[in-house]
Amino acid sequence: MSNTGVTAPAGFAAAGITAGIKASGKPDMALVQNLGPLQVAAGVFTRNRVVASPVKLTRAHVAGGNLHAVVFNSGNANACNGQQGDVDAQAMADKVAAALHTSVSDIAVCSTGIIGEPMPMPVVLAGVDTLVEALGDHGADAATAIMTTDTISKETQVTGDGWSVGGMGKGAGMMAPALATMLVCLTTDAVVSPALADRALRAATAQTFDLLDIDGSTSTNDTVLLLASGASGITPSEEDFTRAVFAACEQLSALMQSDAEGVTKRVSITVTGTTDDHMAAAAARTVGRDNLFKCAMFGSDPNWGRVLAAVGMAEADMDPENISVSFNGHAVCERSCGTSDAREVDLGGSNIDVVIDLGTGGPGKATVRTTDLSHAYVEINSAYTT
Amino acid sequence: MSNTGVTAPAGFAAAGITAGIKASGKPDMALVQNLGPLQVAAGVFTRNRVVASPVKLTRAHVAGGNLHAVVFNSGNANACNGQQGDVDAQAMADKVAAALHTSVSDIAVCSTGIIGEPMPMPVVLAGVDTLVEALGDHGADAATAIMTTDTISKETQVTGDGWSVGGMGKGAGMMAPALATMLVCLTTDAVVSPALADRALRAATAQTFDLLDIDGSTSTNDTVLLLASGASGITPSEEDFTRAVFAACEQLSALMQSDAEGVTKRVSITVTGTTDDHMAAAAARTVGRDNLFKCAMFGSDPNWGRVLAAVGMAEADMDPENISVSFNGHAVCERSCGTSDAREVDLGGSNIDVVIDLGTGGPGKATVRTTDLSHAYVEINSAYTT
Repeated sequence: MSNTGVTAPAGFAAAGITAGIKASGKPDMALVQNLGPLQVAAGVFTRNRVVASPVKLTRAHVAGGNLHAVVFNSGNANACNGQQGDVDAQAMADKVAAALHTSVSDIAVCSTGIIGEPMPMPVVLAGVDTLVEALGDHGADAATAIMTTDTISKETQVTGDGWSVGGMGKGAGMMAPALATMLVCLTTDAVVSPALADRALRAATAQTFDLLDIDGSTSTNDTVLLLASGASGITPSEEDFTRAVFAACEQLSALMQSDAEGVTKRVSITVTGTTDDHMAAAAARTVGRDNLFKCAMFGSDPNWGRVLAAVGMAEADMDPENISVSFNGHAVCERSCGTSDAREVDLGGSNIDVVIDLGTGGPGKATVRTTDLSHAYVEINSAYTT
Repeated sequence: MSNTGVTAPAGFAAAGITAGIKASGKPDMALVQNLGPLQVAAGVFTRNRVVASPVKLTRAHVAGGNLHAVVFNSGNANACNGQQGDVDAQAMADKVAAALHTSVSDIAVCSTGIIGEPMPMPVVLAGVDTLVEALGDHGADAATAIMTTDTISKETQVTGDGWSVGGMGKGAGMMAPALATMLVCLTTDAVVSPALADRALRAATAQTFDLLDIDGSTSTNDTVLLLASGASGITPSEEDFTRAVFAACEQLSALMQSDAEGVTKRVSITVTGTTDDHMAAAAARTVGRDNLFKCAMFGSDPNWGRVLAAVGMAEADMDPENISVSFNGHAVCERSCGTSDAREVDLGGSNIDVVIDLGTGGPGKATVRTTDLSHAYVEINSAYTT
């Protein structure tokens, strides 16, 4: 049964193949086609100012609120390739549009992999032909073909009343504020307007991918797309639809956290007791990015002093003399002072929940997901191009 | 010859001893006494809002522009110990003041080590007695006694015309924006006013320690003090004095970079081509903190794409299509595009100079010093308390 992920909702075809971009011979191209009747689409993108050529193209094409198909490749980000990169991204879109007999402005392109290497265009364009021939209920193949350092493929499905949301994603490192380095494609057979698709997608990503911060790095290629076919014929309420898109993003976000590069611990950091949610998120992010804190988590070391040292630099209202911290529900710091049994807390498991109250009594609250900083992270990232 | 570091200038006595704070039995307390005739002092401190008790005390005592002595301990930061921490820091100052027959407001206290453990006060107070008895030309002993994860003791000496600046420092990790986790004590026998001491120290730290960013973490205890005895009887020009203080800070800063936790590469990141120096420093810091970049440096991997991905998130004016990067003088990226031989650059040596031009033509320029992210860094920091 491969009818999962992006092909779980009605009205979508997909394929994933090995075109030959990756030296490893692993799958490296995917295609998702919206068979309609609607071709509604929305997208959110990296906030990095250095953006890859496919991001520029896709951002322009999705602006009108509809897409017919999305072509993906892994193994090469097509970023920092100058005008040639733009030409190559355009050629990918042109080729797909011709093969599917549609307008090039209805095609999106998503690339992920190494930055600054020219795209092997003969291989890529031949791959498009193979993809179009392979189109079918192959969501699982597509999800596999977009993997880079991911160790598991990532799919999701959320079922509504007669309609559903499906999706696939990749992302295992370089995960940061404005989206992790991720490519995500969500699909739905619900009948929705471009405006609703856009609102639901923005609301969901703000609460999921935007709060996933593995290493503070932000990619040149982050793209999250939502395609709606309307094939179910059912128009859900805005509330139901928004909730389903959120649930799909939440599932993919959790899968990305679990599979982050070199992860041995999944760390959830919740901040309360500051003025507003924005400050709480900033404080949680500051702790989540602190390498000393992350190394302590890798070592299962309940070194709460590093939480205080890190959070003291956050741009959030706090009472420095009244900060509380708990690890996995055990109070380790109260009124900015260690509890008597703070060093006894067992952090040996793979999930660590950190709750930090900044002591102002304010209603702000946010949770950021991160991971530890492990030997494997250093290993994976010390020889990526070589 | 132990008359180095803080006791190189005339008018200072120092000592370094093993009091017994550290379980390892290594030296863990130091004392620096200004014998006058002047007792001018200036200090700069961490910008962290969570500050250790000795920082609160020392900040208050140095505000008047003079100090008679500074007592140091390593092995315990006396941070996040609540009111007891304040009481203990005060007791240390009281004890030193009584032993040296001076006012407690002329005593500074500097602590470094683990956060959130009560100070072993009987050991510490007995240590003060031992220190006072040991006072002499023992700058080298003092420098050794303030080490934590440092692998070398750090001293400096800058000679003027009949006067000099000496100093010692410690700091090997948790180094970040507003000062590395560092304790630094500079001494001089020049005749200077408190106002000049303050100006020279602030100017020097802004260009040295403030631009040393090993891991983005900022300590609760960072303190840099300058003590002036006037014992040379010579009043240097403001320019000469400022230059000497800068040189002393520069030397200690370079020693800290070399000895940073787990360092295998010393990385210097210079940013040009943006609106002002502040933006250039922000951009250099963003790259220097990026874990993916730091891992690439550890792997001697000339993966310039990570420089662009990192700098694209910096709060600095840039032309995203016109960024240039060089590694050790070899152009690896021009106009935001890789050069043909970019992957051939040899980064096998222990020093890597990265120069990034943001392409706006603006006059801003700054250099940040950082290091790679190595297995040893993870190892050292994953089991600090356990």
